[in-house]
Amino acid sequence: MTHFSDRLAESILRRHSTVCVGIDPDLALLPDDLRAAYAARVAELGDVAAVAACFAEYASGIIDAVADVAAAIKPQAAFFEQYGAAGWDALRRVVACAREHELPVIVDAKRGDIGSTSAAYAAALFGGAPTLAGEPLAGLGADAVTVNPYLGDDALSPFVERCAQGKGVFVLARTSNPGAAALQEADCEGRPLYLRVADMIARLGEGSVGSHGYSDVGAVAPATAPTSLAAVRAALPHAFLLVPGFGAQGAGPKALAGLASGEALGYVVNASRSIIYAWREHGGDYRSAAAAATVEMRDSIGGF
Amino acid sequence: MTHFSDRLAESILRRHSTVCVGIDPDLALLPDDLRAAYAARVAELGDVAAVAACFAEYASGIIDAVADVAAAIKPQAAFFEQYGAAGWDALRRVVACAREHELPVIVDAKRGDIGSTSAAYAAALFGGAPTLAGEPLAGLGADAVTVNPYLGDDALSPFVERCAQGKGVFVLARTSNPGAAALQEADCEGRPLYLRVADMIARLGEGSVGSHGYSDVGAVAPATAPTSLAAVRAALPHAFLLVPGFGAQGAGPKALAGLASGEALGYVVNASRSIIYAWREHGGDYRSAAAAATVEMRDSIGGF
Repeated sequence: MTHFSDRLAESILRRHSTVCVGIDPDLALLPDDLRAAYAARVAELGDVAAVAACFAEYASGIIDAVADVAAAIKPQAAFFEQYGAAGWDALRRVVACAREHELPVIVDAKRGDIGSTSAAYAAALFGGAPTLAGEPLAGLGADAVTVNPYLGDDALSPFVERCAQGKGVFVLARTSNPGAAALQEADCEGRPLYLRVADMIARLGEGSVGSHGYSDVGAVAPATAPTSLAAVRAALPHAFLLVPGFGAQGAGPKALAGLASGEALGYVVNASRSIIYAWREHGGDYRSAAAAATVEMRDSIGGF
Repeated sequence: MTHFSDRLAESILRRHSTVCVGIDPDLALLPDDLRAAYAARVAELGDVAAVAACFAEYASGIIDAVADVAAAIKPQAAFFEQYGAAGWDALRRVVACAREHELPVIVDAKRGDIGSTSAAYAAALFGGAPTLAGEPLAGLGADAVTVNPYLGDDALSPFVERCAQGKGVFVLARTSNPGAAALQEADCEGRPLYLRVADMIARLGEGSVGSHGYSDVGAVAPATAPTSLAAVRAALPHAFLLVPGFGAQGAGPKALAGLASGEALGYVVNASRSIIYAWREHGGDYRSAAAAATVEMRDSIGGF
């Protein structure tokens, strides 16, 4: 078994990059020629499957283009789930495409429920659901997932247990949206809620530390709130941080000052729209625009 | 447009029942003859689709059997998601089956993300995703969904906005699992976190109150923590409460004392395993055992 944290560390070191490319496909934002190509196939594929196939082609094109310069890929489950069964199949193909490039895949699903239900979500994302006649299912094949801590640590345990099989978990500590502070920054018995969550993450991750010194249980903390980001880093020196809020959400490289921890820096910075829709801003082919935007972001973040 | 809260109130009043039947299909717990029937169809359907079809038949059988005595149906998304695209299709069929009986369907998905992503989850659950050639998609067709408040009210707004289209939302305030208290009962600036969430729910629900006097934005609060349940009720006199923890999770009718609010009582009590697997305890056909367990639970709760 290779620790997830080791696979992520090695991807960062090999690619000299901490960029995580978020895959958030939105039909209205895709190139006209690609939409037209799949609109012409609606009769053949069906209306829903045509969108799903269009998403899979777009996402795979992006992944192929950024594979040498991105440290990880983060598909957002919601954008695929909108298209039901066909969307779910497309997400599975997108995960497989990233894995073919040996890019760690963090499926952004923000799940979390009582124990037996979290175990079922873990099976959906990591595999393991029983069948009637054959082997347990492979599931989506994610390397890691995002999970929501509100229900407490027993709700997270079924995900954390999968670390023993080489999987990873990123627990939401502090999120990047404007309303995040309402609960997450509330003073809970002398410590903001998100740092109580960080304490929980530290406990959950103690048992799964890879050879690069990082735990397989990481934290989400945002570039849009640099003080909170720094506080999460201080609370979790051995965790990988998944940092949203860069690019289209407004934050820049300054927010990342002092974030590095350990030889592989210990974080990945996510950007979705500013990379996958870079062609809308800068023109050209969507694949080469995404690759150029990833290189530019990698170089602006630095760290190596 | 009929308010979700009115449809739920009318279902409670018509059926003289506050029982919500949770649909948590687990392959290992299904009847041997049903499993054998679908195991024999693996070659025809495929291994994954055979499980999904088996789940759909089981769930539909339960729903048909309890349709006169249950107030609502709550499928748990995770158990279907384990089976990928086929599972998602099965869930859609289960939702449709309940709606044919005019049973309000609460899809238990506990979603929640930043705004644009929550909007995509709302499209998955309630419909509205755009296509290339036709109408927006119908989605799962849920009447209501459960959502997680950790990200704050801007993450919940895309769900709440659907109340104007007759949809409903149940926000997790206090959950029923053993570890729930760790964060939810923490004292946040003089008030436990789950009551800060209740305040948020009150604000979010102000704009959507049906003719029965209930808001379309309800709260999840558990029978396993009766003091917290009563506090949520006190904070939200006009909200529907979705009450888990009854039956297999250990709580009984006493936990519900004083919970009634308004002419339709203002709550539904969920039981999943104690109803859908009642045949394992009491023998007989799974459908008639589920109907008998629902009647027994309805009568034990009382309220009418």
